[in-house]
Amino acid sequence: MKSILLHDLAALDGRRPSPFCWRAKYALAHKGLAFEASPVSMTDIRKLYGGAHETVPIIEDGERTVCDSWAIADYLDEAYPDRPRIFASPGERGLCRFIEASMFPSVVVHLFYAYVKDIHDVLPEKDRVYFRESREKRLGCALEEAAAGREARIENARAGLESLRVMLGQLGQPFVAGESPGYGDYVVASFLLWIASVATAPLLRADDPLLAWFERVRDLHGGIGRTATVNAIAG
Amino acid sequence: MKSILLHDLAALDGRRPSPFCWRAKYALAHKGLAFEASPVSMTDIRKLYGGAHETVPIIEDGERTVCDSWAIADYLDEAYPDRPRIFASPGERGLCRFIEASMFPSVVVHLFYAYVKDIHDVLPEKDRVYFRESREKRLGCALEEAAAGREARIENARAGLESLRVMLGQLGQPFVAGESPGYGDYVVASFLLWIASVATAPLLRADDPLLAWFERVRDLHGGIGRTATVNAIAG
Repeated sequence: MKSILLHDLAALDGRRPSPFCWRAKYALAHKGLAFEASPVSMTDIRKLYGGAHETVPIIEDGERTVCDSWAIADYLDEAYPDRPRIFASPGERGLCRFIEASMFPSVVVHLFYAYVKDIHDVLPEKDRVYFRESREKRLGCALEEAAAGREARIENARAGLESLRVMLGQLGQPFVAGESPGYGDYVVASFLLWIASVATAPLLRADDPLLAWFERVRDLHGGIGRTATVNAIAG
Repeated sequence: MKSILLHDLAALDGRRPSPFCWRAKYALAHKGLAFEASPVSMTDIRKLYGGAHETVPIIEDGERTVCDSWAIADYLDEAYPDRPRIFASPGERGLCRFIEASMFPSVVVHLFYAYVKDIHDVLPEKDRVYFRESREKRLGCALEEAAAGREARIENARAGLESLRVMLGQLGQPFVAGESPGYGDYVVASFLLWIASVATAPLLRADDPLLAWFERVRDLHGGIGRTATVNAIAG
């Protein structure tokens, strides 16, 4: 079987900052599918497939090309029904989508503000103008202003991750998906891998109990969460 | 088939304030199982089954007695495998537990402070001393102090429910469990039914988009979420 090609957002020095590409890598690994991750810089995505897609992840599997992390997960379950399912039921998929939705206001928005300048700084030179223009438009301010006073944003993000500490502590549940890891874990961990790949200020305290879970998820599938350069996530 | 007996926490004037009992009622209804809800006051729980259980819900199904909302859901799936599953996969159960865990720090703790005096006030006289003593010990202050300045707590709880607004808005997903309702919806809606049953100050603004979802969940299974006295949830 020809290996699946994954276009994976690349930054300097072997960094892979896209959380959505991390999810796709975990989804492929969960299915036990061999894949080749091909690095692509932000402004080169439009050069692929005649400009058909604006974002990564994009996978190419024989004749099929699929863009978007959710569409990729769905495609892999449909195309490879005999391999371990990413979503064992429609309910699992819906609950994972809800969990992603819950992370946007409580965690992701704070991470975006706090680390947007760090993301910029690890991009290759040719991506920086595009990144700055598009993100400053979205933020309504300069990247430097968004990141100013980021300690409060980092505190908010830490608080927004409290659900994991309750899960590990009071609940005694090792993974978001229960006793075994699943797409819910990949969704949450991919946001942390995004930050780990760029952070110049640690997101978590060194004694944060959720780090045990994060390291477990990084170790999965042959250590797929360790296949890129990262800065420290905690300190 | 003899109908299942559910011991359901009762308060004054037909109120049913326990979120955990609401979950059990939704779980029974989801399975399409007939049940009889028997009201029990807080201080009478120990009079059931020789004091074997300290909390409700408790169900009695023939010879079997099961206490605790999660244990009840698991029991119903095990005992009635041919009826619609509450958890179609172990992953669904784990994700629902994670969602509950995520609600405790972001929503439930704020609701508890903001509405603890309202809960007290709808309890029958004989439960009030026990409730006040046990909850003041947990809170470390008088019920009245916990509820003082509750506007900020209510604002926090509203913010903690933002995940539902993102789900309904950006995601366009009608239920926590996806296209169809599931236990994830029952977990979240049961916390709102708890508050609706006691609130003397509205939890939500009248134009909150999540009300559409809440009303849909109340309508499920023959309108099971409308079978008890409630105050307004929004205003």
